[in-house]
Amino acid sequence: HLGQLDDLREQVDQINLQLLDLLSRRGELVAEIGRLKSSEGGTKFYDPKREEDQLRLVRQANRGPFTDAAISAMFKEIFKASLDLEETREQRKLLV
Amino acid sequence: HLGQLDDLREQVDQINLQLLDLLSRRGELVAEIGRLKSSEGGTKFYDPKREEDQLRLVRQANRGPFTDAAISAMFKEIFKASLDLEETREQRKLLV
Repeated sequence: HLGQLDDLREQVDQINLQLLDLLSRRGELVAEIGRLKSSEGGTKFYDPKREEDQLRLVRQANRGPFTDAAISAMFKEIFKASLDLEETREQRKLLV
Repeated sequence: HLGQLDDLREQVDQINLQLLDLLSRRGELVAEIGRLKSSEGGTKFYDPKREEDQLRLVRQANRGPFTDAAISAMFKEIFKASLDLEETREQRKLLV
């Protein structure tokens, strides 16, 4: 059983690295969206309607094993980290 | 600019679906690990050392744009959802 457990954990670690890669690409895209909004004079990055739209699409595609509530909780943390990224960049810009 | 914004958002939505797919596969693997532990008589699913090991690997691979702290926060939410999944299954088993 120990070999089996190690093998499963190795697969989880591989998925973690793929998640990191996707999250980082997503972070770059969101930063690009932020720059686009900034260049149009906007400074409001938090967009609850857009977040709700994203959650709806993801929930519609969800086939388990996670409940929709668990999926929403994970994505909300992703949204939060992305927003922090945007606000830090904006803050840095204001301080320059 | 609106077309550009829509295009970037479409790319984010596509990444969201890929994230959902990876998260769901990860959930299945963690459920399998839980079954393996259960069959060995264990009922303790929370394993802080294993979580710390996962975070270390992910932080080592992190090349931005997220800070290590932001990456850790997102992964901790993923760990939490996975643990809830395990505990719900275990609870269901105990109630049968």
